[in-house]
Amino acid sequence: MAEQRAVPPISPTSPAVSALRWEEPPEGPVLVLLDQTRLPAEEAELTCTDVPALVEAIRTLAVRGAPALGLAGAYGVALAAARGFDVAEAAELLVGARPTAVNLAYGVGRAMDSYRRAVESGADVEKAAEAALAAARALHREDAEASALMAEHGRMLLAELLPGGGCRILTHCNTGALVSGGSGTALAVAAAVHRTGRLRRLWVDETRPLFQGARLTTYEASRAGMPYTLLTDNAAGSLFAAGEVDAVLIGADRIAADGSVANKVGSYPLAVLARYHHVPFIVVAPCSTVDLHTPTGAAIEIEQRPGHEVTELVVPGLRSGTGPGGGVPLAALGTQAYNPAFDVVPPELLTAIVTEQGVVSPVTADAVARMCAIARTGQGELPG
Amino acid sequence: MAEQRAVPPISPTSPAVSALRWEEPPEGPVLVLLDQTRLPAEEAELTCTDVPALVEAIRTLAVRGAPALGLAGAYGVALAAARGFDVAEAAELLVGARPTAVNLAYGVGRAMDSYRRAVESGADVEKAAEAALAAARALHREDAEASALMAEHGRMLLAELLPGGGCRILTHCNTGALVSGGSGTALAVAAAVHRTGRLRRLWVDETRPLFQGARLTTYEASRAGMPYTLLTDNAAGSLFAAGEVDAVLIGADRIAADGSVANKVGSYPLAVLARYHHVPFIVVAPCSTVDLHTPTGAAIEIEQRPGHEVTELVVPGLRSGTGPGGGVPLAALGTQAYNPAFDVVPPELLTAIVTEQGVVSPVTADAVARMCAIARTGQGELPG
Repeated sequence: MAEQRAVPPISPTSPAVSALRWEEPPEGPVLVLLDQTRLPAEEAELTCTDVPALVEAIRTLAVRGAPALGLAGAYGVALAAARGFDVAEAAELLVGARPTAVNLAYGVGRAMDSYRRAVESGADVEKAAEAALAAARALHREDAEASALMAEHGRMLLAELLPGGGCRILTHCNTGALVSGGSGTALAVAAAVHRTGRLRRLWVDETRPLFQGARLTTYEASRAGMPYTLLTDNAAGSLFAAGEVDAVLIGADRIAADGSVANKVGSYPLAVLARYHHVPFIVVAPCSTVDLHTPTGAAIEIEQRPGHEVTELVVPGLRSGTGPGGGVPLAALGTQAYNPAFDVVPPELLTAIVTEQGVVSPVTADAVARMCAIARTGQGELPG
Repeated sequence: MAEQRAVPPISPTSPAVSALRWEEPPEGPVLVLLDQTRLPAEEAELTCTDVPALVEAIRTLAVRGAPALGLAGAYGVALAAARGFDVAEAAELLVGARPTAVNLAYGVGRAMDSYRRAVESGADVEKAAEAALAAARALHREDAEASALMAEHGRMLLAELLPGGGCRILTHCNTGALVSGGSGTALAVAAAVHRTGRLRRLWVDETRPLFQGARLTTYEASRAGMPYTLLTDNAAGSLFAAGEVDAVLIGADRIAADGSVANKVGSYPLAVLARYHHVPFIVVAPCSTVDLHTPTGAAIEIEQRPGHEVTELVVPGLRSGTGPGGGVPLAALGTQAYNPAFDVVPPELLTAIVTEQGVVSPVTADAVARMCAIARTGQGELPG
């Protein structure tokens, strides 16, 4: 079950926000999540003492974002093991919580492998649970390390591309500590630039329809003390026209073998605007985002989400809407909506892909394959 | 004062919606407005019996859109005159209701000129009021005629540019009968294409932050029986990429002498996408939208609107928000927003400007000046 509590007030100098953490109070181990559905109005934590509670938190997007879902999956297996529940059943429940989230299955698999190996080598229940937890912690550490490396590679790339004074970065959706075991992807780069005093402005796209930019990126940017400004997605055009954007930084949900990047819908029009205005367009994502089984951008299946996300307004903290989606109807009755979750940026519109291994630029199938090979063998780094 | 009443149910085959109309019931003349703040959830009419009620309706955006505001101003003067109020005071109140709306002052001026001329030529109060009403009716008729001409010129242009089968039109904001004494501007063209059976799809941008596309264009498209689909503004990119857009049609708030077009924010990124994908980008607006005193796009002053339109959600029918703007806070406390009302599309990104005089293409300062000269002298038409 899950228990909610308020988080103590946080000062702007607090360390980065954390999407989730493992705790071991006297009454038994728990996984504590920052409830992202209640941000930014409330910083409330959700304490999960069992896997069904965690599954519910994943389903309601209390925890979200590819790497963070991987961690939730791994810790979920560890939680079931430590609390003496049926671990295989817990793993199955977790993987099914959001079946399209590849990282969730990956995280569950990592912890399950360690758990099974321990059991097979004769470990008792307690030792096997420790092995699962160790796997979750290792994944968490790797994720944090990857964030730190991406942030540094990205910061150096920007310093090289924009050798002058400070820079004004436009970003889309939420790609910070809330999606990761570390400081995130694109937003981690912006934070690194900020720490060196070179961030003149972070332009935050609100990111319709679910407002991840307005709700989550402003929350992270505000906590980190960054100079930031929110805008509607369609207001980005006039910023480019006025020369107010020096670089665009986004994350990625999947990168195809040819370097095509699927990311939150709205990424592609930004890439076209960036090209038209000769502004660098940079994708920041861990190597695990590359899917070599997907040959091209055209082969990436784009999730179509329910139309009511567009035809109704769901207001934070308000569940009194009368629309079929539980929100307040916004459009004429019977209106159908086109609501793709993602769009695809082709490699020719990318300036660079930044991973924990370094910088891929120009983005070609060969360069992506080389980066993946290095990531898999763990040998060397790409030239930064 | 204003009185509200429900409009009888409307069938899809009803004639086009009307933003406002003059009525003369036994208890005295009134101006009846369709309350646009309550669309599409409710089709309620607001019956104004005096100018303060009309001014309040203009301020709250119950009536909006440049040509419709002109009509409201002219009819408002006629209403004050017919009801025996102080006409000069009424005119002043009306013009001040939305000081930046050029058409409002123009409409008031047209009716006031006729009223004053009648008084000066010795007409009694009743005759002078009739003169003001005649001026308002003339403006209404001109506006409806201009709509019909624009619709026909636009339809013919599309037939020429897209000689194949049907066409899929993307539009932004609301440019239909709700903004005009006739059928509108860009949406009037789409409606004309629909009447000939050639509209395969109307793609409706929701138009953040005030959702005019989601709220008003879906309402008009639905009533007209058009095949339409709503989308978030940032989802347009993937439609272009998939080859699903044959033409973009938008209105204009102001056209500079060089042909630059100021229109609802989000127009410029659509123009860049259209260029990148070789899709015609067409502006539909009456000649009165051209301001020859504004030499270039850079000289157009862009209204910056309150940030709370972006940082808060205002839900139709719900006024219980706690944010400074009366809405429900969406972003982190203290978040600043960049919220321009308009952006500017330079002439080089325009395929054509369609006016009641014909089609200007390519869009150059000379061509715009020639069209204005024809409009002013009333001689001839541009080649269609």
